[in-house]
Amino acid sequence: MNDFTIFKQKHIDRIEKEMANFIESHTSDQSLKKAMLYSIQAGGKRLRPLLLLATINSFNCPIEQGAYQTAAALEMLHTYSLIHDDLPAMDNDDLRRGKPTNHKIFGEALAILAGDGLLTGAFQLLALSTIEAGKKILLTQLLGQTAGTEGMVAGQSGDLQGEKKALNLQELSEVHRKKTGALIEFSFMAGGILANQSEEIIYLLKQLANAFGLAFQIRDDLLDVIGSEEKQGKKIGRDQCLNKSTYPALLGIEKAKEALTQQVANAKNISAQIGIIIPGFQPKLLEQMISQLKIT
Amino acid sequence: MNDFTIFKQKHIDRIEKEMANFIESHTSDQSLKKAMLYSIQAGGKRLRPLLLLATINSFNCPIEQGAYQTAAALEMLHTYSLIHDDLPAMDNDDLRRGKPTNHKIFGEALAILAGDGLLTGAFQLLALSTIEAGKKILLTQLLGQTAGTEGMVAGQSGDLQGEKKALNLQELSEVHRKKTGALIEFSFMAGGILANQSEEIIYLLKQLANAFGLAFQIRDDLLDVIGSEEKQGKKIGRDQCLNKSTYPALLGIEKAKEALTQQVANAKNISAQIGIIIPGFQPKLLEQMISQLKIT
Repeated sequence: MNDFTIFKQKHIDRIEKEMANFIESHTSDQSLKKAMLYSIQAGGKRLRPLLLLATINSFNCPIEQGAYQTAAALEMLHTYSLIHDDLPAMDNDDLRRGKPTNHKIFGEALAILAGDGLLTGAFQLLALSTIEAGKKILLTQLLGQTAGTEGMVAGQSGDLQGEKKALNLQELSEVHRKKTGALIEFSFMAGGILANQSEEIIYLLKQLANAFGLAFQIRDDLLDVIGSEEKQGKKIGRDQCLNKSTYPALLGIEKAKEALTQQVANAKNISAQIGIIIPGFQPKLLEQMISQLKIT
Repeated sequence: MNDFTIFKQKHIDRIEKEMANFIESHTSDQSLKKAMLYSIQAGGKRLRPLLLLATINSFNCPIEQGAYQTAAALEMLHTYSLIHDDLPAMDNDDLRRGKPTNHKIFGEALAILAGDGLLTGAFQLLALSTIEAGKKILLTQLLGQTAGTEGMVAGQSGDLQGEKKALNLQELSEVHRKKTGALIEFSFMAGGILANQSEEIIYLLKQLANAFGLAFQIRDDLLDVIGSEEKQGKKIGRDQCLNKSTYPALLGIEKAKEALTQQVANAKNISAQIGIIIPGFQPKLLEQMISQLKIT
């Protein structure tokens, strides 16, 4: 068992409890609560909150209540985006994390509202958190910037247009930098903010997030072509059916694999740069998370 | 021209500019920007932001930049709720404020994203506002509480269930207190917070909001039965088609009119109570807004 696996086992329950407790105690409608908890408890790797906590850990800072609350808000926000993304009007997916998607169980109307509730709840949880006022406002600004119309929502809109016309490599990277990359940016940068890091370090964390996010997306595209449905917990080959622009479609499988290797190396380089500035930096967990993106 | 009309003319441009400027400068995707601006600029009475500014004004406090920003965030949030509420899976409305609904113009997928963008943007705008940190956090908590799963989103979920089974008067009031009432609560209470009022006064503002919100909803239900399509800017008789529980359906038209008159009187009484505690309280604008809810 590597350090990341131990770290994950240690913290994942707490992140999930923060989400469940918040939803249980702040949702006055039973159907809505059920629909929200269904998607929150449908499994998922909890990648973003774990990246956030691993970032704090790499600066040798303790993981406090406010960090769990930020991690929970981030995962709630990510979960809303999956619920809305799976809707018939969007990607029309029946399976997510190996289970029926939210609207397949609860209907479209309640799925839309469950997403709206999780999105609103993410900001409410952050506002109610125990984090010191100045940092809380900074984190709220960053969450708005990365999750909203400069970040994830803009990426999803770009993605829609990518279904209608072919994107070139630069346009595709830009869509992904926003659609998937923005919340990964939040994970690393919020970790830096909670660990009281300087602007210089937070800027490097942003670069690290960009490399990580790009590697993550190329890997996801590759697995859609060469992965197995069972392992992925969702339908394989969907991107092609939807005529989506992807890295393997634009580059071919081999070149896409090379691009993935390149981004993994980039991420490790940036981590090393941070280590030069902050001698106590211990990126072991982060580097294990980066290494997991490799496809052999 | 009464004072409220003058007040509205004086402030409405500024509220609309705050919204448009925020969207223009914080949306990186052109299609998304267009869809968001369409609904923001589709008219609308701007009732909630005007209630907020009128509340500040009634305490003789100046209306500063932060108040316009809060008012703009509130109207963006309200507009997202209309876009999502009009979707085919929800109320399936073709007309809103006399114009085609967002999804009729931009398609369902982009309408969902435009809503998500406005909701996220509301919290981002508040986080970026010039309001002092402590108040900003309080307003963000209140916006989460009133807009989310304890407030508006819960009310919309209750409303969905009301289409499937008949609600009694108490259940209907509860749905409306959340669905329409919650953001009206925010309007009054946020006005009190921005005008540095005590908890006692903010509690009375909440009571005032509840009376106002209930009157507003009864009036809306009545106009759906006795109003004209032209005046309303949306289809008349829709509630009945959708088999929705309404005040006229439960009480009959005459009793519903009486209930409206009663709530208008309640609202004025609470305003008078505030005047007893705060001798300088000048509720003229608020009382004109309350009087406009009357149906003769």
